[in-house]
Amino acid sequence: MKIETIILAAGQGSRMKSALPKVLHPIAGRPMLEHVIVSAQTLQAKKTDAEGGLHVVIGHGADQVRERLGNYAVNWVEQTEQLGTGHAVMQAAPACGEADIVLVLYGDVPLIQSATLESLAAACNGERLALLTINLPNPSGYGRIVRDATGAIQAIVEDKDASPEQHAITEINTGIMAIPGKRLQAWLDKLSCENAQGEYYLTDIVAMAVAEGTAVVHAQPQSATEVQGVNNRAQQATLERQLQRQQAEKLMADGVTLLDPSRLDIRGTLQAGNDVVIDINCVFEGAVVLEDGVEIGPGCVISNAMIGVGTRIKANSIIEESVVASHCDIGPFARLRPGTHLEDSAKVGNFVETKKTVIGAGSKVNHLSYVGDADVGAGVNVGAGTITCNYDGVNKFRTVIGDGAFIGSNSSLVAPVTVGEGATVGAGSTITRDIPGQNLSVARGRQKNIEGWKRPEKKA
Amino acid sequence: MKIETIILAAGQGSRMKSALPKVLHPIAGRPMLEHVIVSAQTLQAKKTDAEGGLHVVIGHGADQVRERLGNYAVNWVEQTEQLGTGHAVMQAAPACGEADIVLVLYGDVPLIQSATLESLAAACNGERLALLTINLPNPSGYGRIVRDATGAIQAIVEDKDASPEQHAITEINTGIMAIPGKRLQAWLDKLSCENAQGEYYLTDIVAMAVAEGTAVVHAQPQSATEVQGVNNRAQQATLERQLQRQQAEKLMADGVTLLDPSRLDIRGTLQAGNDVVIDINCVFEGAVVLEDGVEIGPGCVISNAMIGVGTRIKANSIIEESVVASHCDIGPFARLRPGTHLEDSAKVGNFVETKKTVIGAGSKVNHLSYVGDADVGAGVNVGAGTITCNYDGVNKFRTVIGDGAFIGSNSSLVAPVTVGEGATVGAGSTITRDIPGQNLSVARGRQKNIEGWKRPEKKA
Amino acid sequence: MKIETIILAAGQGSRMKSALPKVLHPIAGRPMLEHVIVSAQTLQAKKTDAEGGLHVVIGHGADQVRERLGNYAVNWVEQTEQLGTGHAVMQAAPACGEADIVLVLYGDVPLIQSATLESLAAACNGERLALLTINLPNPSGYGRIVRDATGAIQAIVEDKDASPEQHAITEINTGIMAIPGKRLQAWLDKLSCENAQGEYYLTDIVAMAVAEGTAVVHAQPQSATEVQGVNNRAQQATLERQLQRQQAEKLMADGVTLLDPSRLDIRGTLQAGNDVVIDINCVFEGAVVLEDGVEIGPGCVISNAMIGVGTRIKANSIIEESVVASHCDIGPFARLRPGTHLEDSAKVGNFVETKKTVIGAGSKVNHLSYVGDADVGAGVNVGAGTITCNYDGVNKFRTVIGDGAFIGSNSSLVAPVTVGEGATVGAGSTITRDIPGQNLSVARGRQKNIEGWKRPEKKA
Repeated sequence: MKIETIILAAGQGSRMKSALPKVLHPIAGRPMLEHVIVSAQTLQAKKTDAEGGLHVVIGHGADQVRERLGNYAVNWVEQTEQLGTGHAVMQAAPACGEADIVLVLYGDVPLIQSATLESLAAACNGERLALLTINLPNPSGYGRIVRDATGAIQAIVEDKDASPEQHAITEINTGIMAIPGKRLQAWLDKLSCENAQGEYYLTDIVAMAVAEGTAVVHAQPQSATEVQGVNNRAQQATLERQLQRQQAEKLMADGVTLLDPSRLDIRGTLQAGNDVVIDINCVFEGAVVLEDGVEIGPGCVISNAMIGVGTRIKANSIIEESVVASHCDIGPFARLRPGTHLEDSAKVGNFVETKKTVIGAGSKVNHLSYVGDADVGAGVNVGAGTITCNYDGVNKFRTVIGDGAFIGSNSSLVAPVTVGEGATVGAGSTITRDIPGQNLSVARGRQKNIEGWKRPEKKA
Repeated sequence: MKIETIILAAGQGSRMKSALPKVLHPIAGRPMLEHVIVSAQTLQAKKTDAEGGLHVVIGHGADQVRERLGNYAVNWVEQTEQLGTGHAVMQAAPACGEADIVLVLYGDVPLIQSATLESLAAACNGERLALLTINLPNPSGYGRIVRDATGAIQAIVEDKDASPEQHAITEINTGIMAIPGKRLQAWLDKLSCENAQGEYYLTDIVAMAVAEGTAVVHAQPQSATEVQGVNNRAQQATLERQLQRQQAEKLMADGVTLLDPSRLDIRGTLQAGNDVVIDINCVFEGAVVLEDGVEIGPGCVISNAMIGVGTRIKANSIIEESVVASHCDIGPFARLRPGTHLEDSAKVGNFVETKKTVIGAGSKVNHLSYVGDADVGAGVNVGAGTITCNYDGVNKFRTVIGDGAFIGSNSSLVAPVTVGEGATVGAGSTITRDIPGQNLSVARGRQKNIEGWKRPEKKA
Repeated sequence: MKIETIILAAGQGSRMKSALPKVLHPIAGRPMLEHVIVSAQTLQAKKTDAEGGLHVVIGHGADQVRERLGNYAVNWVEQTEQLGTGHAVMQAAPACGEADIVLVLYGDVPLIQSATLESLAAACNGERLALLTINLPNPSGYGRIVRDATGAIQAIVEDKDASPEQHAITEINTGIMAIPGKRLQAWLDKLSCENAQGEYYLTDIVAMAVAEGTAVVHAQPQSATEVQGVNNRAQQATLERQLQRQQAEKLMADGVTLLDPSRLDIRGTLQAGNDVVIDINCVFEGAVVLEDGVEIGPGCVISNAMIGVGTRIKANSIIEESVVASHCDIGPFARLRPGTHLEDSAKVGNFVETKKTVIGAGSKVNHLSYVGDADVGAGVNVGAGTITCNYDGVNKFRTVIGDGAFIGSNSSLVAPVTVGEGATVGAGSTITRDIPGQNLSVARGRQKNIEGWKRPEKKA
């Protein structure tokens, strides 16, 4: 079966009140449209023997959408006027000529799962018109699925046109459907815009199918979340929380301890080993890997990072684009900026910032330091208040600290500079020249105690 | 119509277990009584052609209440004994002589809305006794509204006195009412305290109105939240969360992205432009303005601040009484204390504290610095670990840094001191005298490398 | 009455997917088994005239369990094979010979309350078999309590064996029971493992009791939470949140203001005085005491600490094993590490770390400092960026600062060192020798301003 997928993503979304096209608003850190593209691609990769394509119909903010999601292999189809769902599909239909099945999805119905698409495609099987339907406790406002005595779908009746009996129907049309490729163009050709809105409605093909005797069948999603659309920020927030909850439940099923599943945010992918513990209010962005036994304290934000076995990250730490080896001890209030690499059992403590820096095995930067553009060896102790002066206003330079060195507190290391193995820097020193191994280097003024000092007085 | 409003606020609130009078306990950062005063004032401002007044009956903690809310134009009426709601109204009634309508509100029913008061006053219209009622799924414990066959209100029957039929009534009395001014004194005069509690009950006037043929009518609030009273901390917390939720929903309707509407706290007013994004667990206090495109990271606390277009505030930043211009970059872990003013595109990074300081356009204070009482020009780079030494133990002095200056890391600037335009301060320097423009200033000891240094040994 | 308690804690808990034995997984910071032990001990202490014991049957991870909870007075009974609940009780029964009542509890049903155990024991009274039952809206999956026409318990019928009528029974068996000591061994002797699983089921003794005419009675817990078991991380998280909610409600009933009761985590005991205010997202661990009027800002983490009257702890502060006296002012972003002692009205500000340090009355460490292993007197001002250099790489030394001293900003105090009373340290000084009282001590390089400095240029 060759499946072609059309994703409708041209709408303005005026209720979002945003300069950003609606389909680019994120759920769990990804544009809504991206979720749909990924689900469609997953289906394509899995279920098609002939390679079908992805056709995304864009309109409002088309350039923004194309640019933001330009890395996906997608046929972008521009719809210059928005004349309804049928009209949108017409734009993409010519590109779907050879398809057995044409799947119609929506860029603002983001959480549709590929498993659901698979069952929808199977229901269609190139022969039947397959509608994705769902039973809602409160179906008010939605188009109802009207069936005949045998249970066969007869029509979709809009809420406003429904009889009292039809109002009681709880099965509704989600709009998502799988159309037999061989009938698509004929049906589109028959669509009319002679209605109140002056738009071409894709759902009108249901009546055509029934009229011509093509079976109309249905599939249903696993959860109502999959077919919820987003028209405003409140609905966006609702889906955000639902997806976050699902992600939390999946992690717990895999053996992760979450101190509060409703206070976890994963905006990307979080891969966790055994006996990982995540405290309240953590945020994960991009691709994060937590190996076995990692413990994350409350309020941490971790983006695109790899955290090794048994490492403990204490409260309120922030880690971006870094690699942390095993049994490290980080935070609280640590900030690892991009390019930080901690080797085994390294320790980065409170109010410490690192950047483009390797901290060697067992080395410690425990307090109030900035270590940037540095190569710190193993077994080094970097005292409190140490600053690597890596920037001269225009250029950046590296600081190299050899194994076993001891950097006294409140030191400034003016890069480029090398502190040799086993060297010692006296507290409060400003180091501008290299220090050979095993040397002590001191660079500070001599202490003078002056008796009888008269303290300043309060000025008027 | 002249409306006089009486707010009952004399109760002790012993279940709050607090030294603070109950009506001063806050919801969303404001004393409960203040919410009621503001709603009443809004009504007064909108709906009255003759100027009526606000009469607040106080008793327990009267001085504290008066002092805390002394900035409101209120007639404070002291009730020295607490002998019931009727007795409380008696204290204020003499001041309401000319009123068409006397509105009775409660200082511990904080979320009443002026629109509801408006409909209640309209129902009264100076002629009828208007009760604010509400239908509750579980009315148990409340006084029921008993109506006759025509639907006219006949009586309020207390829960304990209700017949089985009356128990089934779901419409209950909230206690809030609008009384025809011309009948008030006569009815109060007839109140009796001959009952089990020995108190004067205002609700007894309902029977008087019915007996004398004055129509008793009703109005209803938009939401049950408006008429919920607070008698303990659990009820306070419940109302707090409900109000926070309402505020979140209003923001989302206005086009703000909230990553989690249930993890947002606004204790004051938050005014947000287009495409503002607020991450989890942010707290806003006082008057905060976020212009278009502002993004606030998780865990930020922002009080009385104005944040300009496109500024990004990263995780765990704290801003108080500051003005931030457009396209600034703040945090994470930044703290802007009162009197901070960031000009366009300024950058204040991690572990940086500012106070009574202007940071000029495009200037950067990226790491681990304290900049207080300073005027920093445009295009300045303040290195990591820089401290403005603004305090001599009794006096504070200013530090002035000219445009384009470069302050090396770990420097101390001993105020009063001026660093000229384009000047450079060497890393680790303690600057006590002014630096002319374009100069380099260095103030540090000379580096000595000493060979064969013997490291300290572990003492017993 | 002599009560012996058997706690079954040998199961593997494979659905936890953990290297930690199931009963050691924590709820509110304590292993589940510990909660059960404490409830059982509370009952023992309260209700028994003869001293009974606690017998914990362990199997999977027995060594870990015994080690983790080794401080409890418990008779550890090893069950080498896991052959069912009856088999587990058999292992401990010999040690319960003299008991009037044998209570059977479960290490993975952690929130059972001693009051419930008390009523269960009373129902047994050494004569009757007492089952702890509960009525569930959805009893599906549980063993139903079948009663005869008189209401007497006749049998427990497993869900899979239940008739349609029995399926409708909502009273279910929790497994917790109190067995007359005099019948225990006889009943255990009759248990058989001839069933599908090949296990000995303790519930089979219900049929024996009925058969021999021993009354089977019931008791019920206050809340369903008490009898919920934990088999996976999702159930663990659910119980965690329920217990946290209960703790929050108890605090509010005692007069604590919680800004959000659903964002509070207490993992240990929190004792709070009057008018304590706790903002969102605070975490309390171990034993914490907050005296009257303490205010805790959002996002604080406080472990094993005592906080005095009227102290205010601002946002994002972390306190561990410290004592804080009254009217102190801490944070935001302060970190008090173990052994910190703040005296009255001391102030520790942003980005400040303290450790094994006394800060005297009214002294201030306001910004960006590390004060470790120090004795700071009263009325001292420690300037921004001050570091106590307490570590030479192998040894730690103390810094002593006398009353009224003024430590200039960015100073390094190289311990062991004493700054005398009323002494002043110039900003940017590195102090290596003692400073007599009232002296000024300066240790820094002389400032040189160099004209015509050519700034570095951008390198290729």
